Amino acid sequence: MNTVDMDLERLAGLISDIQFTMLTTVSDDGSIHSRPMATQKLDVEHFDGTLWFFSKKTSHKNHCIEKDQHVNLAYANPSKQRYVSISGRANIVEDRSKMQELWNPTLKAWFPEGLMDPELSLISVNIESAEIWDSPASKMVQMVGLVKSAVTGKPLSQNATKSQHIEIRH
Amino acid sequence: MNTVDMDLERLAGLISDIQFTMLTTVSDDGSIHSRPMATQKLDVEHFDGTLWFFSKKTSHKNHCIEKDQHVNLAYANPSKQRYVSISGRANIVEDRSKMQELWNPTLKAWFPEGLMDPELSLISVNIESAEIWDSPASKMVQMVGLVKSAVTGKPLSQNATKSQHIEIRH
Repeated sequence: MNTVDMDLERLAGLISDIQFTMLTTVSDDGSIHSRPMATQKLDVEHFDGTLWFFSKKTSHKNHCIEKDQHVNLAYANPSKQRYVSISGRANIVEDRSKMQELWNPTLKAWFPEGLMDPELSLISVNIESAEIWDSPASKMVQMVGLVKSAVTGKPLSQNATKSQHIEIRH
Repeated sequence: MNTVDMDLERLAGLISDIQFTMLTTVSDDGSIHSRPMATQKLDVEHFDGTLWFFSKKTSHKNHCIEKDQHVNLAYANPSKQRYVSISGRANIVEDRSKMQELWNPTLKAWFPEGLMDPELSLISVNIESAEIWDSPASKMVQMVGLVKSAVTGKPLSQNATKSQHIEIRH
Protein backbone atom coordinates (compact mmCIF):
# COMPACT_ATOMS: atom_id res chain seq x y z
CA MET A 1 0.00 0.00 0.00
CA ASN A 2 1.53 3.34 -1.04
CA THR A 3 1.47 6.53 1.03
CA VAL A 4 -1.45 8.01 -0.87
CA ASP A 5 -3.56 4.92 -0.26
CA MET A 6 -2.67 5.02 3.43
CA ASP A 7 -3.55 8.71 3.63
CA LEU A 8 -6.85 8.10 1.83
CA GLU A 9 -7.75 5.20 4.12
CA ARG A 10 -6.98 7.29 7.18
CA LEU A 11 -8.98 10.18 5.78
CA ALA A 12 -11.96 7.95 4.98
CA GLY A 13 -11.83 6.53 8.52
CA LEU A 14 -12.03 10.02 9.98
CA ILE A 15 -15.06 11.11 7.97
CA SER A 16 -16.96 7.81 7.81
CA ASP A 17 -18.99 8.46 10.99
CA ILE A 18 -19.97 12.01 9.96
CA GLN A 19 -23.33 11.78 8.20
CA PHE A 20 -23.48 15.25 6.65
CA THR A 21 -20.65 17.32 5.23
CA MET A 22 -20.90 20.96 4.21
CA LEU A 23 -20.20 21.19 0.48
CA THR A 24 -18.86 24.62 -0.44
CA THR A 25 -18.99 26.13 -3.93
CA VAL A 26 -18.27 29.53 -5.42
CA SER A 27 -21.17 31.39 -7.09
CA ASP A 28 -21.05 33.54 -10.23
CA ASP A 29 -20.84 36.72 -8.14
CA GLY A 30 -17.91 35.39 -6.10
CA SER A 31 -19.98 34.69 -2.99
CA ILE A 32 -19.33 31.35 -1.30
CA HIS A 33 -22.13 29.02 -0.24
CA SER A 34 -22.28 25.69 1.56
CA ARG A 35 -25.00 23.14 2.23
CA PRO A 36 -25.25 19.84 4.13
CA MET A 37 -24.80 16.77 1.93
CA ALA A 38 -24.86 13.08 2.76
CA THR A 39 -21.76 11.18 1.61
CA GLN A 40 -22.80 8.03 -0.28
CA LYS A 41 -21.38 4.56 0.45
CA LEU A 42 -17.90 5.37 1.64
CA ASP A 43 -15.77 2.21 1.56
CA VAL A 44 -13.04 3.01 4.10
CA GLU A 45 -10.75 0.09 3.31
CA HIS A 46 -10.85 0.52 -0.44
CA PHE A 47 -11.31 4.27 -0.67
CA ASP A 48 -10.14 5.52 -4.07
CA GLY A 49 -10.22 9.26 -3.31
CA THR A 50 -13.59 10.06 -4.89
CA LEU A 51 -16.60 11.06 -2.78
CA TRP A 52 -20.15 10.82 -4.13
CA PHE A 53 -23.33 12.84 -3.53
CA PHE A 54 -26.80 12.98 -5.04
CA SER A 55 -28.16 16.31 -6.30
CA LYS A 56 -30.64 17.87 -8.70
CA LYS A 57 -29.46 18.94 -12.14
CA THR A 58 -31.17 22.30 -11.65
CA SER A 59 -29.72 22.98 -8.19
CA HIS A 60 -27.59 25.99 -7.39
CA LYS A 61 -24.64 23.75 -6.47
CA ASN A 62 -24.73 21.99 -9.84
CA HIS A 63 -24.77 25.37 -11.55
CA CYS A 64 -21.75 26.51 -9.49
CA ILE A 65 -19.81 23.32 -10.25
CA GLU A 66 -20.47 23.64 -13.97
CA LYS A 67 -18.82 27.08 -13.83
CA ASP A 68 -16.03 26.31 -11.33
CA GLN A 69 -15.08 22.77 -10.34
CA HIS A 70 -13.29 23.77 -7.14
CA VAL A 71 -15.14 22.67 -4.00
CA ASN A 72 -14.49 22.21 -0.32
CA LEU A 73 -16.02 19.55 1.91
CA ALA A 74 -16.05 20.37 5.62
CA TYR A 75 -16.69 17.40 7.92
CA ALA A 76 -17.32 18.30 11.56
CA ASN A 77 -17.72 15.96 14.53
CA PRO A 78 -17.93 18.45 17.41
CA SER A 79 -18.34 15.80 20.13
CA LYS A 80 -14.94 14.36 19.18
CA GLN A 81 -13.50 17.78 18.29
CA ARG A 82 -12.66 16.40 14.88
CA TYR A 83 -12.71 18.69 11.84
CA VAL A 84 -11.70 17.78 8.31
CA SER A 85 -11.36 20.08 5.31
CA ILE A 86 -11.18 18.41 1.92
CA SER A 87 -10.27 20.38 -1.21
CA GLY A 88 -11.06 18.87 -4.56
CA ARG A 89 -12.66 19.13 -7.96
CA ALA A 90 -16.26 18.25 -8.57
CA ASN A 91 -17.98 16.80 -11.60
CA ILE A 92 -21.65 16.37 -12.46
CA VAL A 93 -22.20 12.72 -13.34
CA GLU A 94 -25.35 11.40 -15.01
CA ASP A 95 -24.44 7.72 -15.06
CA ARG A 96 -27.67 5.85 -14.17
CA SER A 97 -25.88 2.62 -13.23
CA LYS A 98 -23.66 4.53 -10.80
CA MET A 99 -26.80 6.10 -9.32
CA GLN A 100 -28.29 2.64 -8.89
CA GLU A 101 -25.14 1.42 -7.16
CA LEU A 102 -25.15 4.36 -4.71
CA TRP A 103 -28.90 4.67 -4.10
CA ASN A 104 -30.45 3.92 -0.72
CA PRO A 105 -34.08 4.33 0.39
CA THR A 106 -33.37 7.16 2.88
CA LEU A 107 -32.62 9.40 -0.10
CA LYS A 108 -36.35 9.46 -0.83
CA ALA A 109 -36.64 12.22 1.78
CA TRP A 110 -34.91 14.54 -0.69
CA PHE A 111 -35.72 12.83 -3.97
CA PRO A 112 -39.25 11.44 -3.64
CA GLU A 113 -39.27 10.25 -7.25
CA GLY A 114 -36.19 8.14 -6.60
CA LEU A 115 -34.06 6.83 -9.42
CA MET A 116 -36.81 7.61 -11.93
CA ASP A 117 -36.38 11.34 -11.34
CA PRO A 118 -35.08 12.80 -14.63
CA GLU A 119 -33.58 15.69 -12.64
CA LEU A 120 -31.42 13.38 -10.52
CA SER A 121 -27.65 13.71 -10.87
CA LEU A 122 -24.52 12.73 -9.01
CA ILE A 123 -21.71 14.95 -7.86
CA SER A 124 -18.31 13.28 -7.67
CA VAL A 125 -15.52 15.03 -5.77
CA ASN A 126 -11.95 14.03 -6.54
CA ILE A 127 -9.89 14.81 -3.49
CA GLU A 128 -6.73 16.83 -4.03
CA SER A 129 -5.72 17.71 -0.48
CA ALA A 130 -7.05 17.57 3.06
CA GLU A 131 -6.45 19.16 6.42
CA ILE A 132 -7.34 17.34 9.62
CA TRP A 133 -7.82 18.46 13.21
CA ASP A 134 -8.54 15.36 15.22
CA SER A 135 -8.18 16.57 18.81
CA PRO A 136 -8.79 19.76 20.74
CA ALA A 137 -5.06 20.45 20.35
CA SER A 138 -4.04 23.18 17.99
CA LYS A 139 -2.09 21.16 15.42
CA MET A 140 -3.39 20.27 12.04
CA VAL A 141 -2.24 17.50 9.75
CA GLN A 142 -2.12 18.35 6.10
CA MET A 143 -2.30 15.78 3.31
CA VAL A 144 -1.38 16.96 -0.16
CA GLY A 145 -0.95 15.23 -3.50
CA LEU A 146 -3.88 12.91 -2.95
CA VAL A 147 -4.87 12.87 -6.60
CA LYS A 148 -4.70 9.45 -8.20
CA SER A 149 -4.65 8.70 -11.87
CA ALA A 150 -8.02 7.41 -12.96
CA VAL A 151 -6.18 5.13 -15.41
CA THR A 152 -3.38 3.60 -13.35
CA GLY A 153 -4.83 4.10 -9.86
CA LYS A 154 -1.39 5.38 -8.86
CA PRO A 155 -0.46 8.79 -7.46
CA LEU A 156 -0.08 11.45 -10.15
CA SER A 157 2.93 13.04 -8.47
CA GLN A 158 6.02 11.61 -6.83
CA ASN A 159 5.57 14.27 -4.17
CA ALA A 160 2.61 12.23 -3.03
CA THR A 161 4.94 9.65 -1.53
CA LYS A 162 5.85 12.22 1.11
CA SER A 163 2.43 13.73 1.29
CA GLN A 164 1.95 14.29 4.98
CA HIS A 165 3.26 17.05 7.17
CA ILE A 166 2.30 19.06 10.20
CA GLU A 167 1.37 22.71 10.41
CA ILE A 168 0.14 25.07 13.08
CA ARG A 169 -3.55 25.81 12.86
CA HIS A 170 -3.64 29.56 13.23
CA MET B 1 -37.21 45.80 15.53
CA ASN B 2 -36.95 45.53 11.75
CA THR B 3 -36.90 42.28 9.75
CA VAL B 4 -33.13 42.28 9.34
CA ASP B 5 -32.63 42.60 13.10
CA MET B 6 -35.09 39.77 13.69
CA ASP B 7 -33.34 37.59 11.12
CA LEU B 8 -29.93 38.36 12.65
CA GLU B 9 -31.17 37.58 16.16
CA ARG B 10 -32.64 34.29 14.99
CA LEU B 11 -29.43 33.46 13.13
CA ALA B 12 -27.28 34.28 16.16
CA GLY B 13 -29.48 32.07 18.32
CA LEU B 14 -28.97 29.14 15.96
CA ILE B 15 -25.17 29.37 15.91
CA SER B 16 -24.53 30.49 19.49
CA ASP B 17 -24.17 26.93 20.86
CA ILE B 18 -21.78 25.81 18.09
CA GLN B 19 -18.24 26.35 19.34
CA PHE B 20 -16.34 25.94 16.09
CA THR B 21 -17.36 27.02 12.61
CA MET B 22 -15.56 26.06 9.41
CA LEU B 23 -14.29 29.26 7.79
CA THR B 24 -13.90 28.80 4.04
CA THR B 25 -11.68 30.93 1.83
CA VAL B 26 -10.52 30.77 -1.79
CA SER B 27 -6.77 30.39 -2.45
CA ASP B 28 -4.72 32.00 -5.21
CA ASP B 29 -4.93 28.84 -7.32
CA GLY B 30 -8.73 28.67 -7.00
CA SER B 31 -8.71 25.80 -4.51
CA ILE B 32 -11.07 26.18 -1.57
CA HIS B 33 -9.98 25.55 2.02
CA SER B 34 -11.72 25.59 5.37
CA ARG B 35 -10.56 25.42 8.98
CA PRO B 36 -12.27 25.34 12.40
CA MET B 37 -12.52 28.74 14.05
CA ALA B 38 -14.01 29.77 17.39
CA THR B 39 -16.58 32.56 17.15
CA GLN B 40 -15.78 35.30 19.69
CA LYS B 41 -18.36 36.76 22.10
CA LEU B 42 -21.55 36.46 20.13
CA ASP B 43 -24.25 38.67 21.69
CA VAL B 44 -27.45 37.02 20.49
CA GLU B 45 -29.86 39.75 21.58
CA HIS B 46 -27.86 42.61 20.14
CA PHE B 47 -26.23 40.89 17.19
CA ASP B 48 -25.19 43.48 14.60
CA GLY B 49 -24.34 41.06 11.77
CA THR B 50 -20.57 40.96 12.25
CA LEU B 51 -18.79 37.82 13.48
CA TRP B 52 -15.27 37.97 14.98
CA PHE B 53 -12.33 35.56 14.99
CA PHE B 54 -8.71 35.68 16.08
CA SER B 55 -5.97 34.75 13.60
CA LYS B 56 -2.31 35.25 12.78
CA LYS B 57 -1.33 37.94 10.30
CA THR B 58 0.89 35.43 8.49
CA SER B 59 -1.75 32.69 8.28
CA HIS B 60 -2.98 31.25 5.00
CA LYS B 61 -6.53 32.43 5.71
CA ASN B 62 -5.39 36.03 6.22
CA HIS B 63 -3.52 35.83 2.93
CA CYS B 64 -6.62 34.51 1.16
CA ILE B 65 -8.84 37.23 2.65
CA GLU B 66 -6.43 39.96 1.58
CA LYS B 67 -6.81 38.72 -2.00
CA ASP B 68 -10.53 37.86 -1.94
CA GLN B 69 -12.88 39.02 0.81
CA HIS B 70 -15.57 36.43 0.10
CA VAL B 71 -15.87 33.79 2.81
CA ASN B 72 -18.31 31.16 3.99
CA LEU B 73 -18.93 30.12 7.57
CA ALA B 74 -20.40 26.64 8.02
CA TYR B 75 -21.89 25.95 11.47
CA ALA B 76 -22.82 22.31 12.11
CA ASN B 77 -24.63 20.84 15.10
CA PRO B 78 -25.07 17.21 14.00
CA SER B 79 -26.83 16.10 17.21
CA LYS B 80 -29.62 18.61 16.50
CA GLN B 81 -29.35 18.16 12.73
CA ARG B 82 -28.83 21.88 12.44
CA TYR B 83 -26.66 23.29 9.66
CA VAL B 84 -26.07 26.96 8.88
CA SER B 85 -24.23 28.45 5.92
CA ILE B 86 -23.27 32.11 6.21
CA SER B 87 -21.92 34.04 3.22
CA GLY B 88 -20.13 37.28 3.85
CA ARG B 89 -17.12 39.49 3.39
CA ALA B 90 -14.12 39.31 5.66
CA ASN B 91 -11.69 42.00 6.77
CA ILE B 92 -8.39 41.78 8.61
CA VAL B 93 -8.63 44.07 11.64
CA GLU B 94 -5.63 45.12 13.73
CA ASP B 95 -7.48 47.18 16.33
CA ARG B 96 -5.80 46.37 19.68
CA SER B 97 -8.71 47.65 21.77
CA LYS B 98 -11.13 45.39 19.86
CA MET B 99 -8.75 42.48 20.50
CA GLN B 100 -8.77 43.32 24.20
CA GLU B 101 -12.58 43.41 24.22
CA LEU B 102 -12.83 40.00 22.54
CA TRP B 103 -9.94 38.19 24.24
CA ASN B 104 -10.53 35.30 26.60
CA PRO B 105 -7.92 33.08 28.32
CA THR B 106 -8.82 29.89 26.40
CA LEU B 107 -7.34 31.53 23.30
CA LYS B 108 -3.88 30.98 24.80
CA ALA B 109 -4.06 27.43 23.43
CA TRP B 110 -3.61 28.89 19.94
CA PHE B 111 -1.89 32.18 20.76
CA PRO B 112 0.43 31.50 23.71
CA GLU B 113 1.81 35.04 23.62
CA GLY B 114 -1.69 36.41 24.09
CA LEU B 115 -2.51 40.02 23.33
CA MET B 116 1.20 40.91 23.25
CA ASP B 117 1.70 38.77 20.13
CA PRO B 118 2.65 41.19 17.33
CA GLU B 119 1.33 38.64 14.81
CA LEU B 120 -2.17 38.63 16.33
CA SER B 121 -5.01 39.91 14.15
CA LEU B 122 -8.77 39.78 14.03
CA ILE B 123 -10.96 38.64 11.19
CA SER B 124 -14.36 40.30 11.01
CA VAL B 125 -17.04 38.75 8.81
CA ASN B 126 -19.93 40.95 7.70
CA ILE B 127 -22.85 38.67 6.96
CA GLU B 128 -24.59 39.12 3.62
CA SER B 129 -26.83 36.07 3.48
CA ALA B 130 -27.47 32.81 5.27
CA GLU B 131 -29.07 29.46 4.69
CA ILE B 132 -30.43 27.40 7.55
CA TRP B 133 -31.38 23.75 7.92
CA ASP B 134 -32.71 23.34 11.43
CA SER B 135 -34.34 19.91 11.34
CA PRO B 136 -33.80 16.61 9.57
CA ALA B 137 -36.47 17.75 7.11
CA SER B 138 -35.38 18.71 3.67
CA LYS B 139 -36.37 22.37 3.63
CA MET B 140 -33.94 25.20 3.97
CA VAL B 141 -34.63 28.75 5.04
CA GLN B 142 -32.74 31.42 3.19
CA MET B 143 -32.06 34.88 4.57
CA VAL B 144 -30.80 37.47 2.13
CA GLY B 145 -30.11 41.17 2.36
CA LEU B 146 -28.67 40.93 5.85
CA VAL B 147 -26.12 43.68 5.25
CA LYS B 148 -26.56 46.68 7.50
CA SER B 149 -25.11 50.09 6.99
CA ALA B 150 -22.19 50.60 9.35
CA VAL B 151 -23.24 54.26 9.60
CA THR B 152 -26.99 54.11 10.14
CA GLY B 153 -27.31 50.55 11.48
CA LYS B 154 -30.25 50.15 9.09
CA PRO B 155 -30.64 47.66 6.24
CA LEU B 156 -28.85 48.73 3.04
CA SER B 157 -31.65 47.49 0.82
CA GLN B 158 -35.43 47.72 1.00
CA ASN B 159 -35.46 44.13 -0.17
CA ALA B 160 -34.25 43.28 3.26
CA THR B 161 -37.68 43.92 4.68
CA LYS B 162 -38.84 40.78 2.90
CA SER B 163 -35.63 38.89 3.37
CA GLN B 164 -36.84 35.42 4.24
CA HIS B 165 -38.10 32.69 2.00
CA ILE B 166 -38.12 28.94 1.71
CA GLU B 167 -36.32 26.76 -0.80
CA ILE B 168 -35.85 23.06 -1.33
CA ARG B 169 -32.49 21.77 -0.21
CA HIS B 170 -31.42 19.68 -3.15
